[in-house]
Amino acid sequence: MPDIRILTEAQLRDVVALDRETVDVIENGFRALAGGGVVMPPVLSMAIEEAHGEVDVKTAYVPGFDGFALKVSPGFFDNPKIGLPSLNGLMILLSATTGLVQAVFLDNGYLTDIRTAAAGAVAARHLAPEDLAVAGVLGTGVQARLQMQALHLERPFDRCLVWGRDPQRAAACAADIAAATGASAEVMTEIAPLVKQSQLVVTTTPATEPLITADMLHGGLHITAMGSDQGGKTEIAPEALAAADLYVCDRVSQCALMGELRGARAAGLMAGDPPELGAVIAGQAPGRSDPRQVTICDLTGTGVQDTAIASHVAARLGEAGTVIHA
Amino acid sequence: MPDIRILTEAQLRDVVALDRETVDVIENGFRALAGGGVVMPPVLSMAIEEAHGEVDVKTAYVPGFDGFALKVSPGFFDNPKIGLPSLNGLMILLSATTGLVQAVFLDNGYLTDIRTAAAGAVAARHLAPEDLAVAGVLGTGVQARLQMQALHLERPFDRCLVWGRDPQRAAACAADIAAATGASAEVMTEIAPLVKQSQLVVTTTPATEPLITADMLHGGLHITAMGSDQGGKTEIAPEALAAADLYVCDRVSQCALMGELRGARAAGLMAGDPPELGAVIAGQAPGRSDPRQVTICDLTGTGVQDTAIASHVAARLGEAGTVIHA
Repeated sequence: MPDIRILTEAQLRDVVALDRETVDVIENGFRALAGGGVVMPPVLSMAIEEAHGEVDVKTAYVPGFDGFALKVSPGFFDNPKIGLPSLNGLMILLSATTGLVQAVFLDNGYLTDIRTAAAGAVAARHLAPEDLAVAGVLGTGVQARLQMQALHLERPFDRCLVWGRDPQRAAACAADIAAATGASAEVMTEIAPLVKQSQLVVTTTPATEPLITADMLHGGLHITAMGSDQGGKTEIAPEALAAADLYVCDRVSQCALMGELRGARAAGLMAGDPPELGAVIAGQAPGRSDPRQVTICDLTGTGVQDTAIASHVAARLGEAGTVIHA
Repeated sequence: MPDIRILTEAQLRDVVALDRETVDVIENGFRALAGGGVVMPPVLSMAIEEAHGEVDVKTAYVPGFDGFALKVSPGFFDNPKIGLPSLNGLMILLSATTGLVQAVFLDNGYLTDIRTAAAGAVAARHLAPEDLAVAGVLGTGVQARLQMQALHLERPFDRCLVWGRDPQRAAACAADIAAATGASAEVMTEIAPLVKQSQLVVTTTPATEPLITADMLHGGLHITAMGSDQGGKTEIAPEALAAADLYVCDRVSQCALMGELRGARAAGLMAGDPPELGAVIAGQAPGRSDPRQVTICDLTGTGVQDTAIASHVAARLGEAGTVIHA
């Protein structure tokens, strides 16, 4: 049997970073999604209520990639009480021709973090206005930081506005964004003026009630909503989704279950299937065609991104990691 | 982060074998399944038609176990053409309290093989007649061999009858069973006389039409049907299922989708929920109560068995394997 390569999070951080190459890799994944032949089963999800935990498993076969990733994402939300991170997990890369395990990436969620942020940059590449001076972000966690870092690769904004429920956490997040991007960053205490001043807003919260309402939209705004990844979550009001000139899903079938599309459909405001990001990238559906348009991209996270980032790691890893003679 | 232990198939074979201790471990898993609180999501299944392959992912949380297993089982059926086994894969053991990865077992399906065979022995322990001189097996693959080996631990039969579509493969299988158990073993060319002479028959084939029909049943017979694990497979005729004195499922919800129960329900021959093996073990449902009864056990394979075997490996592994400082 072929050798299997094992990489730790530290080794993976040496191999891949959140840079333009990674954004290109994720863009290629979405493009492949539009090409047909992708097999992406529904997420396997298991809740362990006694431990306030859950585990999600995602996978996707993408024609054109030699391997496919299978990702295990545990979230155990009492972990911080004992000094451990809530999110961790690993990715397995298997051969798409033999099913043999090729590598195990013990990434503790690092690869998910960067492939998720890179998808935000891909959305901006195709949907954001060209001139982007001010970017806003709702939420103050890891993705708030990484989404702004990824966006800055694509649209090097001068100023970043940060909103969060906890002003101290928002201040820490703003400081980190300023340090990572070189842009100025400041905390906003209200969402409406943040949206008003921004040409692009990324929502990264676990909100269960909409944060952005239709009255906040303005010409020349792009919103990437990446916080909602479960049936009970929503960040964008259904009326705002309906009012946008262009609303794009990473995957319609997923957004209808756990993204913003769910609420809009429940409200009877979204008939038919919106275009997918991959179709926009592939030129099969129009992206932004006018700087004054309002565009929204709904990102729930796809197995295609995992397969794309894991394949990228495999191509770059060289001699890194531990080799197991299986 | 805690260290992660990686074991290869060879190392795993040194740590656990198909013995009575393993049968007890699997019995405990089924008993826990009857105790409530088990979370066992539907199997994640992805087909890669271009490669004549598929991947299944199973997991189960079982109260009372410190960890839970997540099992990845690829089956790529063109592999033998290039000298590779069709089935391979791995198991991951995660903490049930923190979700952290504890170990990765690169078992190529070995742990699945022995936990599957051990389930057959558990079924025999509770459902087979006490006096068992002749055992029959349909099919000539790995499970045909292992099921007879496991059964012999529990009911040390004197004689084994083997049927397969290919007489040469059947002869090789019979020779292996004789060598592993010390019983005599011979090939039968017809199924009906095999069933007639046997007190216990295990069916291990991928048949899509029933092999055992109601007219073959006789008093004092137990059948364990473990071949069907997909919607299109069946080994036991619906009328035979209905005619048995006792029909037991490993998990009703799974047997209704991919076991023998599916066909029996479709034929309108099985109203209500049959008992589960765990309930029989726990004394919540009767097992065999008379040596003249006909009993059938339907095994589709459960995530509980994976969690039980992986936890057993973790408890026994000592210093084996490679330690990754994650």
